[in-house]
Amino acid sequence: MTEAAAHEFRFAVNVLPKPGILDPQGRAVEGSLGHLGVTGVSGVRVGRRVELVVAAADASTARAIVDRLAHELFSNPLIEQYELEALNAPVVEAAR
Amino acid sequence: MTEAAAHEFRFAVNVLPKPGILDPQGRAVEGSLGHLGVTGVSGVRVGRRVELVVAAADASTARAIVDRLAHELFSNPLIEQYELEALNAPVVEAAR
Repeated sequence: MTEAAAHEFRFAVNVLPKPGILDPQGRAVEGSLGHLGVTGVSGVRVGRRVELVVAAADASTARAIVDRLAHELFSNPLIEQYELEALNAPVVEAAR
Repeated sequence: MTEAAAHEFRFAVNVLPKPGILDPQGRAVEGSLGHLGVTGVSGVRVGRRVELVVAAADASTARAIVDRLAHELFSNPLIEQYELEALNAPVVEAAR
């Protein structure tokens, strides 16, 4: 009986509108800043963040799985770009 | 005539459902994994990522503005948590 020694790797995928693609949520945020009395904020872009845990034999295998999911499931490659982020922290978050 | 020497600081705000809060998008992703033939993925959480540029006199002033926006505009503190991320890269992204 064989048993693969799988480790757990935690990643985040940050998905944002590609430069030049209309970002209506970003514009809406910028339109709200005046009501809050906030000045000096620009370049607001609103996207998604997906965090996940992958059990795999090694980090590069895990990253390849996350890259495939990011491309096929988490983003629309026509209008969005994504970046992968390896997370070292444990699964339970400390921040509020 | 005085002129404040404002610098531009780039931040990201990552907003995620609080632990224990139902995350229907995360469950939907996990439900899709079988169709893609992907195994070993767990703990999927789907949230938002907001990137922005703040012009302020110093980094701590800029961070305070971002923290206020994250609390009042980008997140629902009842069900979501957020974390701030200082970004060093220039405003134009390199990744696809």
